[in-house]
Amino acid sequence: MAEEIPEVVIDRLPIYARALSLFAANGRDVVNSQELGEQLGVTPAQIRKDLSYFGRFGKQGRGYNVKRLLEELHQILGITREWSMVLVGVGQLGRAILGYAGFTRQGFRIVAAFDDDPGVVADTVEGVVVKPVADLEAAMRDIDAQIGIVAVPASQAQDVIDLLVKSGVKAILNYAPIAAQAPPDVRVKDIDPVLALQSMTFYIKDLGAGSSQAK
Amino acid sequence: MAEEIPEVVIDRLPIYARALSLFAANGRDVVNSQELGEQLGVTPAQIRKDLSYFGRFGKQGRGYNVKRLLEELHQILGITREWSMVLVGVGQLGRAILGYAGFTRQGFRIVAAFDDDPGVVADTVEGVVVKPVADLEAAMRDIDAQIGIVAVPASQAQDVIDLLVKSGVKAILNYAPIAAQAPPDVRVKDIDPVLALQSMTFYIKDLGAGSSQAK
Repeated sequence: MAEEIPEVVIDRLPIYARALSLFAANGRDVVNSQELGEQLGVTPAQIRKDLSYFGRFGKQGRGYNVKRLLEELHQILGITREWSMVLVGVGQLGRAILGYAGFTRQGFRIVAAFDDDPGVVADTVEGVVVKPVADLEAAMRDIDAQIGIVAVPASQAQDVIDLLVKSGVKAILNYAPIAAQAPPDVRVKDIDPVLALQSMTFYIKDLGAGSSQAK
Repeated sequence: MAEEIPEVVIDRLPIYARALSLFAANGRDVVNSQELGEQLGVTPAQIRKDLSYFGRFGKQGRGYNVKRLLEELHQILGITREWSMVLVGVGQLGRAILGYAGFTRQGFRIVAAFDDDPGVVADTVEGVVVKPVADLEAAMRDIDAQIGIVAVPASQAQDVIDLLVKSGVKAILNYAPIAAQAPPDVRVKDIDPVLALQSMTFYIKDLGAGSSQAK
């Protein structure tokens, strides 16, 4: 199944799930694709098409059962379970990542952290003891972690990614601003805020300097 | 023009630009859509189609002139100039954002930072003096900043977004895990690492526990 569904569709499912969680939190039992689309800035047709890859949800004109669709999406995405992650890079960014409550709340737990800086190794940060990067491969034999987080400088990032791959990690969340290379069976997602900024400047570039003072 | 081009296409342009920069850095003058596609995990047809929205680049079978295409993309995206940004939220995450060299290197400069914590206000972080959030709207009259970065807890994020919109910001980079609401003329991009994780678990969920120890 995974082969046939476009990656852009998979990328939208967590966004749908997050929006449905909000509707659920607001006590809503049923939501239609129109409302969901308005919330997310996606057309209702797109939502219906994306969900149609996974079978039939909701009846024509009746909308979706919020709780049931949410459960289905969680099943599809594989987030009904907890996931263990290892972090490489415990600088300022790595510390913010370790302290980010959003991960644990959503079932993603950082179980080990690694850094090369002797001034950081053996420190306990957010309850995790930092180990030397040289110990990563050996440590991974004892840890059942499927996801690696890369928070090292760009110059070291590809080496760290190679090491994570060699250690058996199957998904990598990469914060370093590089075009990461990994074998086809390893998923990589980049967190690059500059890419997000650059896709917004497209829309605001013609507003003219000083437009922020128009009011 | 902005109205006709799908947002997913615009979102891919910065990724193409980043890959082209790498080819340029490696001394390449010409690159074809096949190579670019392999680098990025996008089909060559997709790349050609995306670029065709903006006119003709490169000759059939000859590939793209790296430098020229890069310049064109920078023009299209509006990143031939510098952009000023204001940050709201100077906790651990906000500090990591202020210290992130990638922004400045790509022409995005944080010119002001705001926080509500009296223990942080008046501190200088990475050369920026933190001001109280209550001063934001007034301060924005003197700052020609078009972009706001939101790094406050989820519970405060929508209020901060509303305040930024009221202050004339036209693009918002939102780090808080909320479905942010903004008027149609204000662009919002979420940086939510959990969404990225959840779209990867789709692919690795059937590998089975302990697969990371297979080697």
